[in-house]
Amino acid sequence: MTWFRRLATLGLTAMTIGSASADDADHEAVRQLLSQQVASWNRGDLKAFMETYWKSPDLTFYSGGEIQQGWESTYERFQRRYQAEGKRMGKLQFSDLAIDALSAERMLVRGRWRLEQNSSRHEGLFTLIVARTSAGWRIIHDHTSRRESTAAQP
Amino acid sequence: MTWFRRLATLGLTAMTIGSASADDADHEAVRQLLSQQVASWNRGDLKAFMETYWKSPDLTFYSGGEIQQGWESTYERFQRRYQAEGKRMGKLQFSDLAIDALSAERMLVRGRWRLEQNSSRHEGLFTLIVARTSAGWRIIHDHTSRRESTAAQP
Repeated sequence: MTWFRRLATLGLTAMTIGSASADDADHEAVRQLLSQQVASWNRGDLKAFMETYWKSPDLTFYSGGEIQQGWESTYERFQRRYQAEGKRMGKLQFSDLAIDALSAERMLVRGRWRLEQNSSRHEGLFTLIVARTSAGWRIIHDHTSRRESTAAQP
Repeated sequence: MTWFRRLATLGLTAMTIGSASADDADHEAVRQLLSQQVASWNRGDLKAFMETYWKSPDLTFYSGGEIQQGWESTYERFQRRYQAEGKRMGKLQFSDLAIDALSAERMLVRGRWRLEQNSSRHEGLFTLIVARTSAGWRIIHDHTSRRESTAAQP
């Protein structure tokens, strides 16, 4: 028995953010989900982008100070903000991704986002709870925040 | 066997945000942790407030576009923003709390915050991952966002 296994047996190993060791296959599936999000967004396919979210009235999307409750309401928000007359989806990028299993059925994803549009750039952070559903891994809670514009500070 | 238990046995019950049924005692402990946060803040006791966070270099605190990695760095941020010359902690309130068990050892907490200071009011949303640690339930990841000031929009 190695020292590590001995510590683990005694319950003495340091706690980590994740509490479960998920399959490599599960981690890979969640990475794929994020790639699908970015690829769908960047080809202007909001419907495919929305496929990465849990199609449920219990989906929650938190952004700034605004709560969207449910898949439909989240979809409508994206349509309003990015597909209305004169709006563009632009180019989305994720970086600094951290993917941690919270249980065999829930993962925590943290990262940075950056959105480049014709005339503007925005960036910020996101926290996702991703769940194993009957349709595969889906985002069940999304909290997105934007870097505060320093110009707007008093 | 009731219809509900029969469905549960067949694995046919609807998925919910939480994936585990935690003890009432665990839910109560997490509610207590949040009450301790608010009470500590409102008596200006930043040290007691910080006791609600996991004292680890792996704690993450996301706010707007800014990442604090680790307990020390998070504490320093709060000192800089709320205890420096001329700064005040003000009065903090939480509302619309949702507490869901993700596993026997991890809870998801979502809610709204509001901070009233002498001359200003701020409000926004938070998402917390709370973990059962050897010291009790502690926040291991905090994502906080602020309502975008509409005045600052072009």
